[in-house]
Amino acid sequence: MLKTLIIGNGNVASHFIKAFTKAGTIEATQLDSRKIDTISDYDVIVIAISDDVIATVSEKLKDTTSLVVHTSGTVAMNVLQTKRKGVFYPLQTFTKDKSVDFSKIPFCIEATNATDLQILSTLAKALDVKAYEISTEQRKKLHIAAVFVNNFTNHMYTIGKDICDEHQVPFEILLPLIEETAKKVKELSPKEAQTGPAKRNDIETIQSHLENLNLHQQEIYSLLTKSIQEN
Amino acid sequence: MLKTLIIGNGNVASHFIKAFTKAGTIEATQLDSRKIDTISDYDVIVIAISDDVIATVSEKLKDTTSLVVHTSGTVAMNVLQTKRKGVFYPLQTFTKDKSVDFSKIPFCIEATNATDLQILSTLAKALDVKAYEISTEQRKKLHIAAVFVNNFTNHMYTIGKDICDEHQVPFEILLPLIEETAKKVKELSPKEAQTGPAKRNDIETIQSHLENLNLHQQEIYSLLTKSIQEN
Repeated sequence: MLKTLIIGNGNVASHFIKAFTKAGTIEATQLDSRKIDTISDYDVIVIAISDDVIATVSEKLKDTTSLVVHTSGTVAMNVLQTKRKGVFYPLQTFTKDKSVDFSKIPFCIEATNATDLQILSTLAKALDVKAYEISTEQRKKLHIAAVFVNNFTNHMYTIGKDICDEHQVPFEILLPLIEETAKKVKELSPKEAQTGPAKRNDIETIQSHLENLNLHQQEIYSLLTKSIQEN
Repeated sequence: MLKTLIIGNGNVASHFIKAFTKAGTIEATQLDSRKIDTISDYDVIVIAISDDVIATVSEKLKDTTSLVVHTSGTVAMNVLQTKRKGVFYPLQTFTKDKSVDFSKIPFCIEATNATDLQILSTLAKALDVKAYEISTEQRKKLHIAAVFVNNFTNHMYTIGKDICDEHQVPFEILLPLIEETAKKVKELSPKEAQTGPAKRNDIETIQSHLENLNLHQQEIYSLLTKSIQEN
């Protein structure tokens, strides 16, 4: 059995406690970060709280000999003020009240030595998730890449919906296309999967599209078209 | 039985003939567009060929009394030089050699009168697909919206992969996030689903991300961040 403590009571902590409890070989306890007092020994203590309070909360754990990890995509491992430190970062978007298939989430793990890294591997295996050894520096870049494929992609959906709404076209017509676009890059690299007027250099269609957009949309359309053509 | 003729031998025509043949209540014949000579009567003749030759090929069908439709997202219905005309446009991205679940494809249908529209509804029903009555003008806007949610989204994936490659991070770590982002907008509007530093107006993270990107990526990051903030 892996003896674990999850500190935090937000969104990520809730998803964690649910998944940890479900796994057969993990014993999990949850604790509010304001209630840290004397802490007994654990195999792993997981701090699942907001980025900006990770350092402060870890300060309260500076006497423990347990391995302490945070779950953030952006915070460096070394902000942890504990003797043993690590990262156990799930690369997924968690929405409150929407269940997530935990087994599909890739975890980025980091530690200061091979023994602690092995403990995090064992924890990932117990949760039946895939773990990738990723440094603080790489995790930072991965987080930026995630902004493009998640936040900016979602904004493309917003603009698509704006165009539909303006012309009384139901946005749901686009949902199967959105799904297929996401699926395609499992089989092809995104560069190979690229289609459309920009890729074909179809000047006439590009021109006609621009004439049908507002100034704000035109600016985005032009920049991304140029970017596809130069890629 | 619906008696149909599919003209063309490209990507879309192949997907069509496969799906038409599979449907129990459709009789389908395929014909190369260069071999149009005398044509017998059909319930629907589907011209599934490149946008730029639709008008020319339809010219050869100007004597038929059959309903003639094209399958293009951008070409106006009225370019058809036939007596009866319509549109039967599948809103999906077809990749050669990759099978598509036809039943999930939304079809945009258009015709000049209620009788012909009804025939296209019946054809959609026989194929077990959902049909939406969409005008030429709306179809044009929908096609532009599709460029955003498909072509530009795929380009976001390309940039994400570029960042990963540059720092020896496997792109596959991002695939579950890509899939979840696409799924989320089935339940929430994209505006509600928006997360990330731009949405939170997290200036510090935005600044740090910009410092880690090349000039070209910075330009896109800045414009899309601004667009999310103004939305």
